[in-house]
Amino acid sequence: MSEKMGRACFKMSNPPSITTFSAVGGKKENEGPLGKFFDKINDDPYFSTDTYEQGESQLQKQAVRLALEKGKLKNDDIDFIFGGDLLNQCVGTTFGIMEYNIPFLGIYGACSTMSEGLLLSSLCVDNKIGERVLAVTSSHYCTAERQYRMPVDYGGQRAPTSQWTATASGCLVVENSGNPPFVRGVCIGKIVDLNVTDANNMGAAMAPAAADTVKRFLDAFEMKPDDFDYIVTGDLGKVGSSLFCELLEKENINVYKKHTDCGLMLYDFSDNDVNSGASGCGCAASVLCGYFLPKLKSGELKNILFCATGALLSTTINQQGQPIPSISHGVWISNEKNNLDFKFKQRGGV
Amino acid sequence: MSEKMGRACFKMSNPPSITTFSAVGGKKENEGPLGKFFDKINDDPYFSTDTYEQGESQLQKQAVRLALEKGKLKNDDIDFIFGGDLLNQCVGTTFGIMEYNIPFLGIYGACSTMSEGLLLSSLCVDNKIGERVLAVTSSHYCTAERQYRMPVDYGGQRAPTSQWTATASGCLVVENSGNPPFVRGVCIGKIVDLNVTDANNMGAAMAPAAADTVKRFLDAFEMKPDDFDYIVTGDLGKVGSSLFCELLEKENINVYKKHTDCGLMLYDFSDNDVNSGASGCGCAASVLCGYFLPKLKSGELKNILFCATGALLSTTINQQGQPIPSISHGVWISNEKNNLDFKFKQRGGV
Repeated sequence: MSEKMGRACFKMSNPPSITTFSAVGGKKENEGPLGKFFDKINDDPYFSTDTYEQGESQLQKQAVRLALEKGKLKNDDIDFIFGGDLLNQCVGTTFGIMEYNIPFLGIYGACSTMSEGLLLSSLCVDNKIGERVLAVTSSHYCTAERQYRMPVDYGGQRAPTSQWTATASGCLVVENSGNPPFVRGVCIGKIVDLNVTDANNMGAAMAPAAADTVKRFLDAFEMKPDDFDYIVTGDLGKVGSSLFCELLEKENINVYKKHTDCGLMLYDFSDNDVNSGASGCGCAASVLCGYFLPKLKSGELKNILFCATGALLSTTINQQGQPIPSISHGVWISNEKNNLDFKFKQRGGV
Repeated sequence: MSEKMGRACFKMSNPPSITTFSAVGGKKENEGPLGKFFDKINDDPYFSTDTYEQGESQLQKQAVRLALEKGKLKNDDIDFIFGGDLLNQCVGTTFGIMEYNIPFLGIYGACSTMSEGLLLSSLCVDNKIGERVLAVTSSHYCTAERQYRMPVDYGGQRAPTSQWTATASGCLVVENSGNPPFVRGVCIGKIVDLNVTDANNMGAAMAPAAADTVKRFLDAFEMKPDDFDYIVTGDLGKVGSSLFCELLEKENINVYKKHTDCGLMLYDFSDNDVNSGASGCGCAASVLCGYFLPKLKSGELKNILFCATGALLSTTINQQGQPIPSISHGVWISNEKNNLDFKFKQRGGV
């Protein structure tokens, strides 16, 4: 039974294992510094289908298949799936996973979706609501541009604060026993709105939500930034990352040396198109599944606090002049099941 | 700890109580046969805001406030919320609940959202992942028409198989102790696709998903339609309801006398605009919270199997000629915590 550590924060009783995971990307993702960490790369943005939307579904289909194959799992071994994406009505996920015929719970957290899926999967497995639960998400540059901004063929100019939606997917399976990495604790995010209305500056819109979740997690678990190798945000980019560190500094939490952001890691910044960095559900998901989870498995990293970040806007609401509220869910992922417990006790914690 | 009864089907160990609930509607909902069952009616489709979208958010804001008030609960008494809606990126929920400052997990299940939220809330509470969890959803005729079909001002003609999206919201709170009604068991739905491509006939698209879930639930729990007062689908309407009963008949499950559909209950069919019936997340949610839950509380009804149904389409995918996959999640709601157990045992069940 997971232990409540604070409001909507839970410590795992028997930390679930992330037993298999996969990262799939596109051409630009392959050309970036993390290219070699992807399990599969697709150079064709259509993924041999007729539309970009069907292409995005292929991303999830591939990611799920790879995760199952790497884990030597069959479809029927999975109790159910948590999945979602940025497309209207989450159709990337629907058409990506439906052939697997696995029971499904749709989630929506914009670019925080992988945090939300991992959080829910871990809570379920730690409490024996299923033995093996899968989480998946994706994003696609061309589907996101068409839906949120302009079709890519239009060639619209991009603002310096804008970010590049990753063409990528991440998938993972959480089980009640297995090897590292383990999920140790989670923090359900709150919707935070600092009245940012610029849809070309979503990093700024999302930073307050990430800062709120990190503070709530650290308070609830009586932990410090130094307990982690990295505090990993989803896709704040350059602008949002600075703001995130400043907001926490005001709360007397110094994360300058511990913070990294998936949106700053995925692309080569000498490519001018990247502007403020990468974004999209697939950014945080693929960087987690491609880069961080293998290092947490091998022991190269011991602990990260993974806080993917989502901007909860729609074009309709944005055109109506409404602000961009955001959310971030926090997940503590560790190489060990029980480290740091001694420290907890010394601090008068759990 | 919830007991696994079959794939993605769980029986509650200590059936959680739905302690407070509310139903909010619009003018047309008030004029239908269920008008008197709503807690609050709004005659203005703008809800005194500038846009229909903000109006839809007001629906959820009102429903949450009413549920909290009726349960004598403060915002801080709720551990977290499961919520979602039909609008792109679920902005109805975001802007409806954000002022409450309650941790939030976004879900997407189209019109099955109330089933999904109630299912997840019940699993969480039965396993002590939170003591008190809230689920909410909504739909709005004018926002749905604008997004999925035509703006209402256009005056487009409606197909006879089309349904009328309810302007309504339902909200409920699940707790680990309390009075009836209780959640006894749940079944997570699968995505089912029988290649229906007509977006004006969503009842037909959703019927196979509901039939699949009802069959899986009855098989897993070794129950029969006669164990329930009603098997309640979400918004299949006239066309989908007939198909639903026929599909189950082929599986040797006769639900003709037990089936009812929220989409057939909400409006007066002498109103020609209604066509095949009501639809929208708010339809199943408000009929559950306004009509069924009070009767399950008083004991007038003993058991229902509630299966809200969602069509997982988007306009983009539909225009690209793709089919409309659907999903339905099943929740057994009862006036008693432990009835039927004896029958289980006699049948060699649990």
